Amino acid sequence: MKIAVLPGDGIGPEITHEAVKVLSALGDSFEMEMAQVGGAGYAAHGHPLPEGTLKLAKEADAVLFGAVGDYQYDTLERALRPEQAILGLRKELGLFANLRPAILYPELAGASTLKPEVVSGLDILIIRELTGDIYFGKPRGVRECPDGPFAGQREGFDTMRYAEGEIRRIAHVAFQAARKRDRRVTSVDKANVLETFQFWRDVVTSVHKEYQDVELEHMYVDNAAMQLVRAPKKFDVLVTGNMFGDILSDAAAMLTGSIGMLPSASLDANNKGLYEPSHGSAPDIAGKGVANPLATILSAAMMLRFTFGKTEQADRIETAVKRVLAQGLRTPDIHEPGSTKVGTKEMGDAVVAAL
Amino acid sequence: MKIAVLPGDGIGPEITHEAVKVLSALGDSFEMEMAQVGGAGYAAHGHPLPEGTLKLAKEADAVLFGAVGDYQYDTLERALRPEQAILGLRKELGLFANLRPAILYPELAGASTLKPEVVSGLDILIIRELTGDIYFGKPRGVRECPDGPFAGQREGFDTMRYAEGEIRRIAHVAFQAARKRDRRVTSVDKANVLETFQFWRDVVTSVHKEYQDVELEHMYVDNAAMQLVRAPKKFDVLVTGNMFGDILSDAAAMLTGSIGMLPSASLDANNKGLYEPSHGSAPDIAGKGVANPLATILSAAMMLRFTFGKTEQADRIETAVKRVLAQGLRTPDIHEPGSTKVGTKEMGDAVVAAL
Ligand SMILES: CC(C)[C@H](C(=O)O)[C@@H](O)C(=O)O
Ligand SMILES: CC(C)[C@H](C(=O)O)[C@@H](O)C(=O)O
Repeated sequence: MKIAVLPGDGIGPEITHEAVKVLSALGDSFEMEMAQVGGAGYAAHGHPLPEGTLKLAKEADAVLFGAVGDYQYDTLERALRPEQAILGLRKELGLFANLRPAILYPELAGASTLKPEVVSGLDILIIRELTGDIYFGKPRGVRECPDGPFAGQREGFDTMRYAEGEIRRIAHVAFQAARKRDRRVTSVDKANVLETFQFWRDVVTSVHKEYQDVELEHMYVDNAAMQLVRAPKKFDVLVTGNMFGDILSDAAAMLTGSIGMLPSASLDANNKGLYEPSHGSAPDIAGKGVANPLATILSAAMMLRFTFGKTEQADRIETAVKRVLAQGLRTPDIHEPGSTKVGTKEMGDAVVAAL
Repeated sequence: MKIAVLPGDGIGPEITHEAVKVLSALGDSFEMEMAQVGGAGYAAHGHPLPEGTLKLAKEADAVLFGAVGDYQYDTLERALRPEQAILGLRKELGLFANLRPAILYPELAGASTLKPEVVSGLDILIIRELTGDIYFGKPRGVRECPDGPFAGQREGFDTMRYAEGEIRRIAHVAFQAARKRDRRVTSVDKANVLETFQFWRDVVTSVHKEYQDVELEHMYVDNAAMQLVRAPKKFDVLVTGNMFGDILSDAAAMLTGSIGMLPSASLDANNKGLYEPSHGSAPDIAGKGVANPLATILSAAMMLRFTFGKTEQADRIETAVKRVLAQGLRTPDIHEPGSTKVGTKEMGDAVVAAL
């Protein structure tokens, strides 16, 4: 049971530290090895995803990832910027299935910008395809515009694409996840405009034949964005492509008002996974000891569940997190009058104590 | 002053009727000619955008458009489906600049799913490029996957692209619109992943040199989706591409909770425009006389302002709409206890009376 720990930049090291503490407190013997990634990778080895880091990630059974990005790397050329590390890891490790729960803990309902009756008890799962689509499709670049009214000018271009097998495997993940929940899948596409997503709709419909116990609904992406604002609790599992998933999963996370609480898993075909909080590296509060470590701790719980099949241990962590919330402990991002404000380390300690 | 009136499907005819009534009541002599479009175009002439309709739209100075789409056309092949009419009109008329205000009238603050303090007084303008991007880029289709692990399988694909001149002209529209507002533009892209949108960012930045009195901020699309939920009032003008604009403008409209109130304008380079409500054809309530005609009436006001330069008349309509809201008149979609429920026709009559 080998875990590659990649803390990254900004608040990454602080929050990862707490998650490692929680994993260690479980009493299982995980082998954990740390490496630099993102801006820290660039600073140490000249590349956001240094060779040694990639090698470690490939050898390990799972990756615990903090966050990447910091102001000083913003002006680097794109190939060297911190976020290339995460794109590279997804592609190199074949992490095609991104699972992002958007859950609103009853204690934190007040943190949402939405009315409590619209979001309290929210529990949806967004499944985003993570290694295909316009993120990686070729050809792409800047060229001379070949036709139309702007022929001869410079133009930027990218290729959106999804092959049948790519759609089939993410559809299977969605239907199987739905079986463990409310058995409803909403497949989000833009079949009325895009060839890629008409094809997506056709393939998802055909995979659905193997899951007649699960309800399948198709929805256009613009409508999905509206329904997430209007009545998010109506969804159970949402499945979509890489680009639409990027937008919708962040919107869904923000509905809860407590993105500091939301974990994520990115899985390959054999349940190897990369686990990371849904939030970013928050360089403005880095090093101050105030970041919320719970999303990372809950990501570690997802790791136990999906990669190591340790359901009981995963449950223990999730219960411990609920307990510290019930105790009224809050990092500044979720603090409200009447609750007890704590820092990163105290929050991690409280989870360990509650285990 | 010739207006092509294209009522379309569902509630389209009812709401367009009221907007025509309001325009007629102004006392100016508009020449208005009606034609079939969408499902109605297909039913009458075998095509969602019949030749005669396109000819009329080209000849006219402005198009007043209702809405398209109805259940019975859902199973047609894509090229014949109602929404092809709107895509065709945009392309054929060169309507590259889509202006969609998201405004929350104080009287309707309760209709939003967001907390009143987050949205009351909301007044943002989304400017969406409408004739480029992955909506029209070629090549596109379904083919044999040429490379990678899925080589040989079928794959769907599309081309995202933006030429320099396309980006420049929409950037000008955005900066000029901002000058009439709070002088702040947020350009939404995905420059960290897409070549098209790194190029977009570079071109917008260069156009900005001509507008040093306007503040420009760049934001990734996933972050923009979050900020729209978290703090929508922080935006002034948002400008983005066709695909991202489709998603974000609908999300922004839904923030208000009263999409039945929101107009839109789609303009060419010479202020010829197509004006339509932001909502759809709502076939479930079609023919019942309960649809909200205000978005269409406000679209007619935008027409007076942008195409005909009749600012005073546009103001008159907008003031009349505010007046009927203040009188407490509400169609069912925006009805709340204490207000007076009225139908489509009564609402139109009330606006005419208030002029
Ligand atoms: C950093 C960026 C490349 C990345 C993405 O777009 O996938 C991020 O937004 C995410 O969702 O993990
Ligand atoms: C009907 C559809 C093709 C259209 C679009 O995607 O542009 C609609 O969603 C819109 O926003 O006007």
